[in-house]
Amino acid sequence: MKRITILINCKDSKGIIASVTNFIHQQNGNIVYIDQHVDREDNMFFMRLECEFSKESFSLRVFKNVFSEVIGDRFEMTWRLHDSDLKPKMAVFVSKYEHCLYDILSRYSANELEVEIPLIISNHPDLEHIAKNFNIPYYCIKVTRETKNEAEEAQLKLLKEHNIDFIVLARYMQIISPKLIEEYPNQIINIHHSFLPAFPGAKPYHSAFKRGVKIIGATSHYVTEDLDEGPIIEQDITRISHTHSIKDFILKGRDLEKIVLSRALKLHTKRKVLVFKNKTVVFN
Amino acid sequence: MKRITILINCKDSKGIIASVTNFIHQQNGNIVYIDQHVDREDNMFFMRLECEFSKESFSLRVFKNVFSEVIGDRFEMTWRLHDSDLKPKMAVFVSKYEHCLYDILSRYSANELEVEIPLIISNHPDLEHIAKNFNIPYYCIKVTRETKNEAEEAQLKLLKEHNIDFIVLARYMQIISPKLIEEYPNQIINIHHSFLPAFPGAKPYHSAFKRGVKIIGATSHYVTEDLDEGPIIEQDITRISHTHSIKDFILKGRDLEKIVLSRALKLHTKRKVLVFKNKTVVFN
Amino acid sequence: MKRITILINCKDSKGIIASVTNFIHQQNGNIVYIDQHVDREDNMFFMRLECEFSKESFSLRVFKNVFSEVIGDRFEMTWRLHDSDLKPKMAVFVSKYEHCLYDILSRYSANELEVEIPLIISNHPDLEHIAKNFNIPYYCIKVTRETKNEAEEAQLKLLKEHNIDFIVLARYMQIISPKLIEEYPNQIINIHHSFLPAFPGAKPYHSAFKRGVKIIGATSHYVTEDLDEGPIIEQDITRISHTHSIKDFILKGRDLEKIVLSRALKLHTKRKVLVFKNKTVVFN
Amino acid sequence: MKRITILINCKDSKGIIASVTNFIHQQNGNIVYIDQHVDREDNMFFMRLECEFSKESFSLRVFKNVFSEVIGDRFEMTWRLHDSDLKPKMAVFVSKYEHCLYDILSRYSANELEVEIPLIISNHPDLEHIAKNFNIPYYCIKVTRETKNEAEEAQLKLLKEHNIDFIVLARYMQIISPKLIEEYPNQIINIHHSFLPAFPGAKPYHSAFKRGVKIIGATSHYVTEDLDEGPIIEQDITRISHTHSIKDFILKGRDLEKIVLSRALKLHTKRKVLVFKNKTVVFN
Repeated sequence: MKRITILINCKDSKGIIASVTNFIHQQNGNIVYIDQHVDREDNMFFMRLECEFSKESFSLRVFKNVFSEVIGDRFEMTWRLHDSDLKPKMAVFVSKYEHCLYDILSRYSANELEVEIPLIISNHPDLEHIAKNFNIPYYCIKVTRETKNEAEEAQLKLLKEHNIDFIVLARYMQIISPKLIEEYPNQIINIHHSFLPAFPGAKPYHSAFKRGVKIIGATSHYVTEDLDEGPIIEQDITRISHTHSIKDFILKGRDLEKIVLSRALKLHTKRKVLVFKNKTVVFN
Repeated sequence: MKRITILINCKDSKGIIASVTNFIHQQNGNIVYIDQHVDREDNMFFMRLECEFSKESFSLRVFKNVFSEVIGDRFEMTWRLHDSDLKPKMAVFVSKYEHCLYDILSRYSANELEVEIPLIISNHPDLEHIAKNFNIPYYCIKVTRETKNEAEEAQLKLLKEHNIDFIVLARYMQIISPKLIEEYPNQIINIHHSFLPAFPGAKPYHSAFKRGVKIIGATSHYVTEDLDEGPIIEQDITRISHTHSIKDFILKGRDLEKIVLSRALKLHTKRKVLVFKNKTVVFN
Repeated sequence: MKRITILINCKDSKGIIASVTNFIHQQNGNIVYIDQHVDREDNMFFMRLECEFSKESFSLRVFKNVFSEVIGDRFEMTWRLHDSDLKPKMAVFVSKYEHCLYDILSRYSANELEVEIPLIISNHPDLEHIAKNFNIPYYCIKVTRETKNEAEEAQLKLLKEHNIDFIVLARYMQIISPKLIEEYPNQIINIHHSFLPAFPGAKPYHSAFKRGVKIIGATSHYVTEDLDEGPIIEQDITRISHTHSIKDFILKGRDLEKIVLSRALKLHTKRKVLVFKNKTVVFN
Repeated sequence: MKRITILINCKDSKGIIASVTNFIHQQNGNIVYIDQHVDREDNMFFMRLECEFSKESFSLRVFKNVFSEVIGDRFEMTWRLHDSDLKPKMAVFVSKYEHCLYDILSRYSANELEVEIPLIISNHPDLEHIAKNFNIPYYCIKVTRETKNEAEEAQLKLLKEHNIDFIVLARYMQIISPKLIEEYPNQIINIHHSFLPAFPGAKPYHSAFKRGVKIIGATSHYVTEDLDEGPIIEQDITRISHTHSIKDFILKGRDLEKIVLSRALKLHTKRKVLVFKNKTVVFN
């Protein structure tokens, strides 16, 4: 069987669900999963379907065309359609912190993540040995104020050469430029080490310590031009107390960062996340 | 608009979703919510729909008949159909503990629960004053070994007289007889003060203390003939440590019991729970 | 036995613990509980002790004098000393929301809180019926822009008349004036319905909804002149998703508010909270 | 400075805290951390201290003798005394699952764990490549019903040769024999993939799935002769729903196992755990 995933959003109106499910049925497809959401504030409709078709008679190209004509245009939908068997290609950006990279790669090698990782890009040489252990090409592209533009060009070139679908910033300590964001809209996933919108920007654990909070968090979000303000995919927290130093915050935070980031990656790679108006609909 | 909720389970097969959604459409209904689940172990299909119909032309009786003929019989479904605007009638059973009763009634008076509460039944007179504060009839039916049968008859009579749809045991300290369970299958909701299946039966906090666990829990489940083994609706936990005494467990547990029970009540009253093979599908 | 609680903070130096414990011993006291903390950033020492003395020979007044001379002055301590058997007197301030008031009073009537509640003060008459049910005097003092000063005078008069030790703002919807704060430094406990420092000020659930967070929180803190910036006593969170409306946030948030506030009250009434530099040390 | 950690338990009586702190003071030590607990059920006293002494004049051997005579004997204490700077030597036992091993070794290489790991022992060759990446000797000792005794002798020999202080079973799939347990009492740490005492023994995720629980857990405990019934060090949980398959349980469980085990390891290596009557006192 050929399995496809359909993601839809459009203005809410009557009959969308029936029209779409009926259409799939007429195309000899079987719906194996359906989830839907209506945002009453914005009167928007969101849907995610997984459908199966007989491999012999199914053409993704043809299906897309017919879907567009019969359904997409009628409801003025924004829609995406994925071959569920195709693993997306993910680039990992890192700097000097190793914990998120180790976590991603050990999940990858245990077949826990449904992605391909063609390359790792870093602005430092420090973590190359880890990439080597896992047999993944590691490109060190230094970034200084003077070389920022060239570095970015080099990054983009590598991403294009490897047909990268999306990027994960695994504690990459550089601000991503508008150009790269524009090339990968809602396709760059960051992990921020605070419970956003509390403590955006640099050194959130230090700020959390100073404020005397009783809980710290981590947030995975899509990167937009506004620093740490992109659509949130996943968050989690852990309790702390007056007995914990900033160093303890950092250690406890690492575990949070790894788990929150890996959850966000799984949601993204399974195409369970829809973005609308700087918020996410997560069909989980 | 008339809104109805449809709950379905049947053997999984192709085309169920399309058939049902198509049927609703043909009846001039609009699907406002759809959620579905396939249990791959048992090859079972579960679905929950909320649909809206024009009030003028819609007859629930007629719709049920047509649905049964066209859809229900075809897929050999087990199905239930509720008028979403009709609040179910809930009886509250209590003994001497007041915290769950207070919690339910204060939520009820704040319109947080979509139920009617025609009566409270207890085997003790102790909590009558609370019932009075909230203006709800309180029936004290003593239960002793000798009077168990008569007490049960009296309870059943009251339940029938008030057209009770389901029962909540808000820390009711008597074992429910098979007869009552048979009259209200998957309609009696209990709160057990442990993280089931750990510590079933009496005095779970004492057992948890003795075992030295680091987390205690509460479990809300439907009552079946096997004590504390019915289908679980909701669970939650709280951390404890060596510094906590059994009395502390009980105090911390109270908050858990209240929250877990109220969540289960909300899920049940919104018809979001389906039971199959002693497990629940909770569409949330 | 007479039990007392001692709370200490001072610059860290060698021998404080030995000196204090030795002193208690020499006064024929028995230490039943000791907890201590050193803040390495600020080089500050914090300690909480519970000690028992024979009732016959013990005078709190004398003990205080000797402690001050022998220990307090030597280490330049800030210290407080409480008779553990004396329940503090708490005033409850409310407006129109009932959930926190219900929660506090039902815990109070179940002897869960070690306080006396001599009165409830409100700027609205709406919740008087609840106060009546629990037999607690309810004073309605309207607050308008013009009458703010007089209202405050009336509040202060009531608080003094009833020898109030501390105040809980159970969703009291007025800003507390500097004068009242000065009279009750670190003795006014507020519950804010967000995970501070995220979403301070008005309508935090609306802001959380707009930002698309995946977790909401509640924070109990001491009131200072800077709105929602006082020392945090306790926080907790609950997960939400795109399926939840603002109304759902508010409902789920209520449960958080009740639990977080009641935990903060318990910590405060058991004298487990020390404040230093806008942060709390919570000996739990 | 020389820092030592003292762990004490004995029958509760008056003056223990003052006597111990006074003693440390007389030995020219400075108490930098003190925590204590009284178990009212068993009338037992527990204490943990960290003290600093001038390096020149301090002899651990002498101190132990004097402490034993002056304090230990007087209160009939069970006590242990550790040089805080000496890292304990930990052996890792594994079978085929790699996630806990990866987690431990990546924390080890990031200096997060205050241990030395002289060797890894396995009953399978599968994970040797991971040991190699981290440059740690890997000994494969096959265990069959016939060779169980010899295998155990070989294990013990290796443990003795490397002066191993404690053992972590990082999903080691063999039952530990009484002999090994006797050699390492409360020094063998296991991770069990359920929320004990629910689902002890084999295949807990399968049992949890069958029971339809809404939360799964992991438990780290000391190994005793009763399978999965030893003193619990740490537990944690994660929410699951009807949408999760057994495979999902296993994947989500892995993250729990890693975190719970690493927390237990940290508590053990920092000598924060005291065992009494099959329960733990965890000074955290």
